[in-house]
This record gives sequence, C-alpha cells and structure tokens, in this order.
Amino acid sequence: MVGKLMEEMKKKAPIVVGLDPQMGFIPPEILKAAFAEYGETLEGAGEAIFRFNKGIVDNVCDLVPAVKPQIAMYEMFGLPGLHAFKRTVDYCHEKGLLVIGDVKRGDIGSTSAAYAAAHLGSVQVGEQTLVPFGEDFATVNPYLGTDGVKPFIDVCRSAGKGIFVLVKTSNPSSGEFQDRLIDGRPLYEHVGEMVHKWGLDAVDESGWSEVGAVVGATYPEMGRVLREIMPKCCILVPGYGAQGGTGKDLKPFFDADGLGAIVNSSRGIIAAWKNDKYKAFGSAAYEYASRQAVLDMKADIEEALG
Amino acid sequence: MVGKLMEEMKKKAPIVVGLDPQMGFIPPEILKAAFAEYGETLEGAGEAIFRFNKGIVDNVCDLVPAVKPQIAMYEMFGLPGLHAFKRTVDYCHEKGLLVIGDVKRGDIGSTSAAYAAAHLGSVQVGEQTLVPFGEDFATVNPYLGTDGVKPFIDVCRSAGKGIFVLVKTSNPSSGEFQDRLIDGRPLYEHVGEMVHKWGLDAVDESGWSEVGAVVGATYPEMGRVLREIMPKCCILVPGYGAQGGTGKDLKPFFDADGLGAIVNSSRGIIAAWKNDKYKAFGSAAYEYASRQAVLDMKADIEEALG
Repeated sequence: MVGKLMEEMKKKAPIVVGLDPQMGFIPPEILKAAFAEYGETLEGAGEAIFRFNKGIVDNVCDLVPAVKPQIAMYEMFGLPGLHAFKRTVDYCHEKGLLVIGDVKRGDIGSTSAAYAAAHLGSVQVGEQTLVPFGEDFATVNPYLGTDGVKPFIDVCRSAGKGIFVLVKTSNPSSGEFQDRLIDGRPLYEHVGEMVHKWGLDAVDESGWSEVGAVVGATYPEMGRVLREIMPKCCILVPGYGAQGGTGKDLKPFFDADGLGAIVNSSRGIIAAWKNDKYKAFGSAAYEYASRQAVLDMKADIEEALG
Repeated sequence: MVGKLMEEMKKKAPIVVGLDPQMGFIPPEILKAAFAEYGETLEGAGEAIFRFNKGIVDNVCDLVPAVKPQIAMYEMFGLPGLHAFKRTVDYCHEKGLLVIGDVKRGDIGSTSAAYAAAHLGSVQVGEQTLVPFGEDFATVNPYLGTDGVKPFIDVCRSAGKGIFVLVKTSNPSSGEFQDRLIDGRPLYEHVGEMVHKWGLDAVDESGWSEVGAVVGATYPEMGRVLREIMPKCCILVPGYGAQGGTGKDLKPFFDADGLGAIVNSSRGIIAAWKNDKYKAFGSAAYEYASRQAVLDMKADIEEALG
C-alpha cells in the first residue's frame, strides 16, 4: 500500500487530512439537522460527524492522497460513533482516498493479531471471510516490542497494507520517556532503528517499506536524525498547524528527492471555518474553508521544500 | 473505584477473569445456534461471543470481583463485535461485577481525553450527557508521557473510575524497550516511578490510588521492585496460566498484608473446557469448567500467599 501512497503523494501533495471531528467543529446547521432526525443521542452525534466529514471529503479528495481519521473521536460516541467511523472509511474509499486509521493499537502478540485483523485484515466466521473496518494503514504503539508489532507486519504482507509505528510523538511531554538516553542515545532512536529493521521484511516494489513511522513536526531536529536511521520508512508527520509545527519545520522529514514523508493537519483543515483567516466562508461554507486551508498548506509545504 | 475493587477482592479473591473470546474457544453448540439465527456474519460472531461470555459470567460472578474484556477480541468483529463488548460490559454490571476495559489506549492530550470519555466518562451531545461504553477501569499505554495519561486521571477523579498503566508487560519481547537501562535503571522502573507520582493525586479513602499499573506475572523479580516503587498502586497482573506465570510467581506483586494485586487469567478460565484437566465437563458444560478453573486458581493463589 505504501507504493500507492507514494504515487498519489507525487500526483497530489504530501498531505493527509486528519478527520478528527469534535462537536465544536461541526457547523450548527449540521448539528441541528442531525439532532432533529435522531435526537440529542449518540446516534445524532454519529450522524452529524459523518455529514460533517462528507462535506470535507467531497471538497478535498482531489487535492490529497489520504485521510487519517482519529478513532478516539468516534469511539467517544460509543457504537454510533464507531458506525460513523466505518461509514467515513467506506466513503473515503468510494472517493478514491487512502485511509490511515489512527488507532495507535499495540498489545501482546495474540491481541495485536486481533487488532491487525480488525483494522487492516479480515476475520473468519464459519466459512466466511469478512472485513471488519478495512483501513489501508494503521498507527501502532511500540512499547511492547517486536511481538506486539510483528502481527501487524504479517497482515501488511499478506493483505498489502501498511503501518506507521510511533517513534517520536508530537505532544509536549513526549520526551519524558522517548528522549531518555540509553547507551548514549535517546529511546526514540532505538525505536527508530527497530522500525527500520522490522520494515526491511516489508519493502514493496516502490523501494519503500510498508512499515513507516510517526515523528512529530514539532521536533524537526529529531526528524532529521530519524530520516537517516529509517531510510526506507515513510514518515507520518503530525503536529503541523494547530500543534505548532510550520512549513519550514518539515524539510528534515523528507529525503533528498522531496519524498518519504506525509504531513497531517487535522484542526487546521477541518475546523478552518472557525479560524479568523477563513471566517469569511462562514459555517454554511465550512467545507470550502477546509479546501482553501488545504491549498494554503500545500503552498506552504511546496515553498518550504523549495 | 479502586476502594470498591479492594473491598470485593477481600470478600472474594484477587482474581479477574479475562473475557477474551476467540472463535476457537466457543463451544460448537453456541456457534451453531448463533449462526443459525444470524448467519455466518459479524453479527453471528458477536451474538456467539455474547452468549459464550454470559455462560461464564453467570458461573463465576459469585467468585471474582471483576472481569477484564480485551477489546481487541471484539473489535476484530467490527461493529457487531463492539456491540457484543458493550452488551458484555452491561451484563457484567447487572451481575455486580466490576469491569476493567483492557483497551491499552494512549495518545496526545486531546485524543486521550476522548478515549477517557469513551471508556470511563461521558460525552455531551446537545443538552444530553451520555455514557459511551461505561467500564469501571481502563488500561493505558504510557509511551506518550504525562499529557497522554493525565486526561484519564482527570476522568478517574471526576467520575470515580480507575486506570492501570502499562509498566512491564507479560509478553516475551517486552524487554526490548522496557528493560533498557536509563541512568542505570530499566525503563520500566522509570515508568513505575511516574505511575506512582501520577497516582498521588488520585488516592481514595481506601488509601489506594485510582492509578494502578500492569506488571506481567511472567516477571516476578521485577514485580518485587515495582511493588516497592508504587506502594499505593494496585497492580494488575496478566500472564498467569497460559502465558506461563504460576501461583508461586505471584507473591512479590502483593504487599505484606496480601493486598494490592489482582491476577488475570483469560484462556486458562474461559477455554478451560478445552484443557485436558477439565475435558470431562465437555463443550456443553463449558461454563462449569470455567467455574472449576477459577476455584482451582483461587486455591493456587491462596497457597502461594500462605
């Protein structure tokens, strides 16, 4: 799947839209209509989320290769929220987008195998082989080591899917454990080396590995080092925009050919209509504000990469 | 919630039953009936899982204080699987059991807040306050540091719930990162110290903290050290039975009063009927095999604790 992602990135832009809806991001018109139909219920919230996502997807699908729904924002609305997650995955596929399930799962081997089946693979029920959620990529937590990650890689290989393993996250306290020195080098470098090693078994015909890494835009110097440690890994870069990362911070994450990284923006795109810069669009045209925010982000990255 | 857990443990046993169903654990009679009604579908799988769980819960609820459903085993059957998860949580509550959602979530702050609401708290939809999944405890991954864990603790304090943070996991490769030395001490000890510190703000009237830790039964020596580092933290101990941990390995996880730890067994209890030791029960009496396995585990732990 990484080969397809790279190809689409070259055609469009190295940008992924984070579909992380919050009630406060959804225009009142959409909330009102969904609540009128389903009540102020979890179902009403799920319906509002899906309609909100659909408007954005319809207006950015020609500009970006992929979306990254953060499953927590759906899971918080229980089963109806997860139904909206599944509808979003399916709708994005209809519109030709790749879907990165930002699930950050990871557990002991047999449990990671279940998560891998849930998000990237299939399950056997009697004689039937069924697809539970069917994303194209998933994010994975490395804290449990090889046997927590390997089952995901097995599914990547058998089903032609990909993963991004957390290496250095974008949040302020990510350094508490990730930056601690082990044999003179920070933990995230050791994790990066393992990600590189894990990925060598899953390099596809594009030369890139189905095993990628998450490295926050908020830590560009660390991005530079990790780019070298993991030469075949596509780096998923969160933290651009609302979390503080800027265009010029992004260059170290890309290789000499300007490839190998995909930058996520969530709030900066999906809640653009609430930002002073785009407020002229108004809530009724929120989806065009999102489109403009993607175009502006694309220009910012192109300028930074030169 | 930790006070209630401690009280129930004293009355019953320091045992939690891991409700981690797999298709291969479910007696053919149950599968056949569920598939006859719902087909070989995700719905059929979800129905079979719930019926299987119900039989076990009915027969162990007087013996143990809590169950621990591993959400991956439900998530792998998509929305119908998660519906079975929710039905299991609700049914266990009806039967007076505490529910530890083994979800191992953890992300940047705003995302962890969403997961905390999903599993331990509530969400606001219009004027309504709604409960998404409603477990009593959740397991949490510490890799992102304080701001990935703090939102869970906030919900613990406001909603009277608890968490167990992964410190030293039970799987064979847990040492790859967790055992690496930082300033002369393994990473898991540093994580344990943080868990202790995080927990000081959430000590309830029982003297125990709502912030507990996960430490695998497969590493008893590490359990001894961590018991000292985290004196107010209840330790959730997976890895007993199928993963290799035995009764005598458990002593170090308990304090001098024989308190402060709760031992999980999943396969050893829920798939007892497939074990040679209990095969006389047969598939039709699988739930009595599970009951006997709990009684045997209780005797094993009592003997070990002396």
